[in-house]
Amino acid sequence: MTVVAADAAVSQVDAAAAAASTRPRCSTEDMLQLLQDYDCWVFDLDGTIWRGNEVIEGVLEALELLRKLGKKVLFMTNNSMKSRGSYLDKCLQDDIYCSSYSAAAYLDSIGFDRSKKAYVVGERGIMQELAAVGIESFGGPDDNEKRASFSSEMLHDTQVGAVVCGVDPNLSYYKVQYASMCLLLNPGCLFIATNTDARGHFTPNLEWAGAGATVGAIKGVVERDPIVTGKPSPFLMQDIAAKHNVQPAKSIMVGDRLDTDILWGLNTGMATLLVMTGVTDEQLLVAQRGSSNGVKPHFVMDSFGDLRRVAQQALQQQK
Amino acid sequence: MTVVAADAAVSQVDAAAAAASTRPRCSTEDMLQLLQDYDCWVFDLDGTIWRGNEVIEGVLEALELLRKLGKKVLFMTNNSMKSRGSYLDKCLQDDIYCSSYSAAAYLDSIGFDRSKKAYVVGERGIMQELAAVGIESFGGPDDNEKRASFSSEMLHDTQVGAVVCGVDPNLSYYKVQYASMCLLLNPGCLFIATNTDARGHFTPNLEWAGAGATVGAIKGVVERDPIVTGKPSPFLMQDIAAKHNVQPAKSIMVGDRLDTDILWGLNTGMATLLVMTGVTDEQLLVAQRGSSNGVKPHFVMDSFGDLRRVAQQALQQQK
Repeated sequence: MTVVAADAAVSQVDAAAAAASTRPRCSTEDMLQLLQDYDCWVFDLDGTIWRGNEVIEGVLEALELLRKLGKKVLFMTNNSMKSRGSYLDKCLQDDIYCSSYSAAAYLDSIGFDRSKKAYVVGERGIMQELAAVGIESFGGPDDNEKRASFSSEMLHDTQVGAVVCGVDPNLSYYKVQYASMCLLLNPGCLFIATNTDARGHFTPNLEWAGAGATVGAIKGVVERDPIVTGKPSPFLMQDIAAKHNVQPAKSIMVGDRLDTDILWGLNTGMATLLVMTGVTDEQLLVAQRGSSNGVKPHFVMDSFGDLRRVAQQALQQQK
Repeated sequence: MTVVAADAAVSQVDAAAAAASTRPRCSTEDMLQLLQDYDCWVFDLDGTIWRGNEVIEGVLEALELLRKLGKKVLFMTNNSMKSRGSYLDKCLQDDIYCSSYSAAAYLDSIGFDRSKKAYVVGERGIMQELAAVGIESFGGPDDNEKRASFSSEMLHDTQVGAVVCGVDPNLSYYKVQYASMCLLLNPGCLFIATNTDARGHFTPNLEWAGAGATVGAIKGVVERDPIVTGKPSPFLMQDIAAKHNVQPAKSIMVGDRLDTDILWGLNTGMATLLVMTGVTDEQLLVAQRGSSNGVKPHFVMDSFGDLRRVAQQALQQQK
């Protein structure tokens, strides 16, 4: 009877929230249910765990409680500017999947011919992840100072079997031209994008051009779409599911972006939990809800830190 | 009777050509008819009038004969790297419309607020054409050496009311970011592309990244499409029709590219004549012909120089 009464109370809250054009947040009951239903918790980083250089209040404690409850906790970011090693000091553990990893893992998964090379338009992190799976690469920051000139022809390496793109703060015509020559002139050359995010908050007060700039420039020349390996592509979930022996149906994706985090969760058969600590505001969320093809998360919390109290309660019940 | 016999002969040639999976070329009769039907002849430059630095055989003579026959002769190119002034020495007359002109003419036609400025990602020609219609612009080659850094925020000019893009051999992350900030942060800022050509033969033996790289990069960040003013956009034909008092129905577009020249002619209600002296080969032409949504020119000639003999004949008949 108590549960029914609680449900009724929640329904009233729901109705009031809907009337006010807001999306209702997870109730205590919902959160306890989530903790019961999902064994694997996959988190976005920027806007979910931290904002800029500041960890969001209560989040680290909530993560610690999840681990104590025996949950698998993984992190996934589309930031390809650093390799996984660089994130360790921020997150203090090693189950991090960044989009630079995803590109290397994808090429590894399809048995990329190791006698071929990859040309990178992006940061060093991509090259480090490629090296970790034994794929030789060049370009990246080493090509930052190179310039193209119409006063002479340009040569390219015919042994390039993949062009791998990510966000590149030194994107240049030279790099776009070199990548396009590999894609247009080397038979079977793969076009891989770590992600296609339009923008990212790389500094606290400004949105910067994301991997979408790199991919868009090359796509505008070669007139074909890349294979996207990071969010929202399903590839990385398959990789994780195999490596960690987890089922998407028992997993939940937690993130702040509808078009990558939540879409990725939906694309891969996971439950999805949107947090309002990042780029999504109430207006955007309500607009998606009313749209026939909107990206609709299963659950919403103001902050993942809100789970702390309930997780503490669940842990005490378990003991 | 002679005419009927000639038509029958042409039909036999047509049938034979179709059987051989080639597209029939204009007959002498067709050419005489074209000279009778069309008062305004609009030409592409690269691949139609010249290839690289070499004028195609017979073309200049054919153009001269057209003028003697009282035809209006105009030139139209998507190359925005030079302003119209720079083409004069190649074509020896002044009715040239390049895509850099089209961008300036478009802004002029919509009454662009002259207290606002344009930010240019492209070559000097665009800035020269903007200046010619009294629009202040900056960026372009002057920003070639500027670099963005995530170690500091970036500022932009809030008075930029239009971003104008073309092919840019010095495309950089800085330029893409600056243009994107104007488009995302300045209310009502227009996104103008001189064209979206994927590639161009800027050197004799190599295809280089075209305006598609510039437009693609910015589009990948701002997530909206530009207003395209050059081919295949219909804007420029409206501008020409008004300025030269010509009717599209009495005009014919002559070019070597199906996706810009011929499509532009079809989009603007002109007749279209494809020449095989540029990028289109028989295979591409036949493929379009068999496709339900292919771009199908009304007429085909091996070279525009082929008209010389017939135009000479028409001129003698006129005298």
